[in-house]
Amino acid sequence: MGLRHTLDFLLYDWLRAGELTSRSRFADHSRETFDAVFDTCERIAREKYAPFNRTLDIEEPRFDGEKVILPKASKEAYDAFAASGMLSAAQDYEIGGMQLPYTVESAAHTFFAMASVSMGSGMLTVGNANLLMVHGTELQKSVFALNEFSGRWSGTMCLSEPQAGSSLSDIVTRAVPDGGDFASDPLGARYRLKGNKMWISAGEHELTENIIHLVLAKIPGPDGKLIPGTRGISLFIVPKQLVDTQGQLTGVRNDVALAGLNHKLGWRGTTNTLLNFGEGKFPVQGQAGAIGYLVGRPHEGLSCMFHMMNEARIGVGMAATMLGMAGYHASLDYAKNRPQGRLVGPSGKDASQPQVRIIEHADIKRMLLTQKSYCEGALALELYCARLVDEQHTGEPGAANEARMLLEVLTPIAKSWPSEWCLEANSLAIQIHGGYGYTRDFPVEQYWRDQRLNMIHEGTHGIQAADLLGRKVVMAGGEGLRMLALRINGTIERAIQRPEFAEYANALGGALQQVGAATKAAWATGDAREALANAVPYMQAFGHMVIAWMWLDVALSIPAGAAQPPAHVGRLAATRFFYRYELPKIGAWLNVVSSRDATCADMPEEAF
Amino acid sequence: MGLRHTLDFLLYDWLRAGELTSRSRFADHSRETFDAVFDTCERIAREKYAPFNRTLDIEEPRFDGEKVILPKASKEAYDAFAASGMLSAAQDYEIGGMQLPYTVESAAHTFFAMASVSMGSGMLTVGNANLLMVHGTELQKSVFALNEFSGRWSGTMCLSEPQAGSSLSDIVTRAVPDGGDFASDPLGARYRLKGNKMWISAGEHELTENIIHLVLAKIPGPDGKLIPGTRGISLFIVPKQLVDTQGQLTGVRNDVALAGLNHKLGWRGTTNTLLNFGEGKFPVQGQAGAIGYLVGRPHEGLSCMFHMMNEARIGVGMAATMLGMAGYHASLDYAKNRPQGRLVGPSGKDASQPQVRIIEHADIKRMLLTQKSYCEGALALELYCARLVDEQHTGEPGAANEARMLLEVLTPIAKSWPSEWCLEANSLAIQIHGGYGYTRDFPVEQYWRDQRLNMIHEGTHGIQAADLLGRKVVMAGGEGLRMLALRINGTIERAIQRPEFAEYANALGGALQQVGAATKAAWATGDAREALANAVPYMQAFGHMVIAWMWLDVALSIPAGAAQPPAHVGRLAATRFFYRYELPKIGAWLNVVSSRDATCADMPEEAF
Repeated sequence: MGLRHTLDFLLYDWLRAGELTSRSRFADHSRETFDAVFDTCERIAREKYAPFNRTLDIEEPRFDGEKVILPKASKEAYDAFAASGMLSAAQDYEIGGMQLPYTVESAAHTFFAMASVSMGSGMLTVGNANLLMVHGTELQKSVFALNEFSGRWSGTMCLSEPQAGSSLSDIVTRAVPDGGDFASDPLGARYRLKGNKMWISAGEHELTENIIHLVLAKIPGPDGKLIPGTRGISLFIVPKQLVDTQGQLTGVRNDVALAGLNHKLGWRGTTNTLLNFGEGKFPVQGQAGAIGYLVGRPHEGLSCMFHMMNEARIGVGMAATMLGMAGYHASLDYAKNRPQGRLVGPSGKDASQPQVRIIEHADIKRMLLTQKSYCEGALALELYCARLVDEQHTGEPGAANEARMLLEVLTPIAKSWPSEWCLEANSLAIQIHGGYGYTRDFPVEQYWRDQRLNMIHEGTHGIQAADLLGRKVVMAGGEGLRMLALRINGTIERAIQRPEFAEYANALGGALQQVGAATKAAWATGDAREALANAVPYMQAFGHMVIAWMWLDVALSIPAGAAQPPAHVGRLAATRFFYRYELPKIGAWLNVVSSRDATCADMPEEAF
Repeated sequence: MGLRHTLDFLLYDWLRAGELTSRSRFADHSRETFDAVFDTCERIAREKYAPFNRTLDIEEPRFDGEKVILPKASKEAYDAFAASGMLSAAQDYEIGGMQLPYTVESAAHTFFAMASVSMGSGMLTVGNANLLMVHGTELQKSVFALNEFSGRWSGTMCLSEPQAGSSLSDIVTRAVPDGGDFASDPLGARYRLKGNKMWISAGEHELTENIIHLVLAKIPGPDGKLIPGTRGISLFIVPKQLVDTQGQLTGVRNDVALAGLNHKLGWRGTTNTLLNFGEGKFPVQGQAGAIGYLVGRPHEGLSCMFHMMNEARIGVGMAATMLGMAGYHASLDYAKNRPQGRLVGPSGKDASQPQVRIIEHADIKRMLLTQKSYCEGALALELYCARLVDEQHTGEPGAANEARMLLEVLTPIAKSWPSEWCLEANSLAIQIHGGYGYTRDFPVEQYWRDQRLNMIHEGTHGIQAADLLGRKVVMAGGEGLRMLALRINGTIERAIQRPEFAEYANALGGALQQVGAATKAAWATGDAREALANAVPYMQAFGHMVIAWMWLDVALSIPAGAAQPPAHVGRLAATRFFYRYELPKIGAWLNVVSSRDATCADMPEEAF
């Protein structure tokens, strides 16, 4: 089925996104306005993104000493995207937004991610501006956020440093007050920043007239020393070009310089940079140090940043999902057209049979159905999470709180599961292409390379797992996990009503019980070292349980009946596949969690 | 542990390779001569291969219209390798060989594969020449094979065509007698070949003065039509430059032309080509058609080719293993040196703790131990198979026959298991490097890309699985499987004597029983369509059982005792890891095999 068909079903038939229009914020909307957004995004993705995905891979960003050079297609895609208004799709009408539900915005982004994930669709710019809308002053909003939503400027998130990636508490970028009047700058308390920021996506380019960096840095204490740990971290707006209170460029370049481009395995359409802040390459008023305006209060930078984390992580999960989907569709197309081999007969190979297309071979079908169950299952989860974001923002207080708690538990899965399993899907897409899949004449090898980033950025797999087992399932006395179990049990109860789903309902109930028991067993001694030693296998099992739940819940929105249209036959087969081939894997993962197996943790370094 | 240390242990302590010197063929050898070979290979790999592995990736082969251009390092490495005598390491003294056991030759090749897998170590040339030593005439051996063993010429295997990869019965390259005297050419019955051959590794280059192609083609029947199926296939020697009976170049170029280079995801040091045979670009005596000399009898080409298949597939498995090992060692080195984060305390994250190197984190240890268990387990299997090859060739008739049967069953695993799981190991090596692993500044992303080829070439994963379940475990009434079970039971019986291994012995016994039962259940209806629909999950389970067996058998060669040196501690931990974290996975795979689950096979095309 095409992506649009799948989205329509998941959004309208399953998630009942149409009902969101009964809420006051979305009252002007209707399925028609949602569909018009999808039409526009689908068209831009088809015309401006898809044809250039390989171009981005081949014409990697390069620095000529003065500026970063990107393929022409990047600028054209960026302009078309910005012109569509999607950068402010979720914002209020009064600042030029569309007041679209996040669910619809997320679904609209799938077209871009599938067409060319590294061309990007402004996720960082939107995240940057959203953060300012929550934590910025009125002037910071109007000067910075609004110019980002309009597409005039773009934004970055500058967290990592060469020596501090997963461990942000070790950042050493310093911010010191800039002059005696530093506190009275209308754009925010003014500091001078010095330090290096690593892995900064879109950190330097010519797509927009300005780049607004949001930078984590430490304000030294009275003794001049940096405060250890994350408490010392504050957040600053550091524009590449300095601007006035009207949002006009002053013509003064800020002291932010490109130190180097990272040459990546994939995802090459997005420039990734090492930036030097305040090294003196572009001194401001004769002085080294990048000008930065404090956002929020000092020492609360990390919590400002983490405010946006759930949506950023759902965004990564959605990108991973759509890369998987791109490979699935490419390999499905190939399998339908490539003649090779003959069908196995009852007695084995049968050379007298006519040649067939490879989609007729059972093992090719297995690889396609695996991809379908992974990618469409992941898409269901991402949309489900997006719907929870809407509930959190526009639901009744009780429902909003439940949605918030569910999101806390589900976000590590929404981020990690597609990153891991849609990578496997991309590998299967290569496999279906045989030798051709290993060449650059087909797109699947690029999807696989692009995909490999997703287990690394926005919190590695290990970080997600520690977050899930170390915080999310135990927070508030396990309330988040309990709420999730209630929802899963709700699905099970509805499924038990339908005999054809009884097998799945039982299996899902068993899985939920196993995961619950493993959670308790992991924490039985109360020692985090024992509990977390196998956090990744725990997350793998948890994720498989969640996707199994998604599939059963999706299947329940298919009306009962013996004769189903092909799309429903496919969904029911993907559900069956997931329950028969995938869900049983959780036993092996949970074994080591439940026994708090210390084989890995106890391994002495010299024995490797 | 370094590779050499691991090899020494596996070869001498575990496989007792030293005992091979009691056989007449190897009587002149000793551990000292074996070690001298390893010293030489280790040195050449270190000096001529490793420093240039990235160069090969960046300076991909290109065609200037006349010749294929490779980095200078390729020629230097090739020359050093050829000069070492390793191309004829296994051959008789009388033709300049070293009469080395295959076990030792395989072990020697590990150094090259780990240093730069795509630089190559003459596997195709040796396979080509070996084939001629078995199936060629005396003159074909002396003219072609001997000049390949000396390194003067190189060899290829030309099987696939653009429309016929996995399905060789559909090749359409034709071979017709060349003139009335075709049968009396001293180099072999002379034919003219026309057709295209795809995926030909080292099909065109300037590393050697001549390239000897071994080409599968069909001799048309009396009606001029090609015989359908594999029966019609014959084998031909097609030299790039025509030669005389003395092995001198005649100065006449044969009608073999490069049609194009394949641009690959990885493994770029090895040229991969589409070759046109007989299109008339280099007419011989004014006539289009490549001159080819028949090898063996007409219509028996495929069986000649398959004669070398086991060793070729073990070679791929070994390459996959060593790519995995390269990533393991690189990520181990990185983990020992990269400071990041703090140890988890009993109550979770503890910011007051000092920063640690990442090797101290439990999840990093998990990823390292996973790699170790995969790569060293796979290395044990490859060496075990190599030892079986020696047994087949030099053992007593009964033992030789047993070795042959075991190899039939184990070869699909030796080829497929490292291809799949050392790819996962390479992915974990990237993960340990975090963002740096995703850049081309570190070697691990290249290992991962190079590795992805191994599930495709020399018979895809699906082909291996169909071979295992469709042929190997049922051949001779299941005799091969029975012999394997006897060996595994032998290991179990020894393990039961040692209390510390009882857990593993029981688990391995259970796994063997499960695999046996699944084999029976798969074939319970006798219908190959039902049996083979889940051949890949079957192979995955079978492979995990085999690697578990390898680890237990390896562990048994460690003397009992409480205080072990670090290398043994590491091996025992890897064994425990494999039994606790990996072996339990087989249940999920075997479920669908045993139930002959038809979810995939029954999926209608239009439902995808």
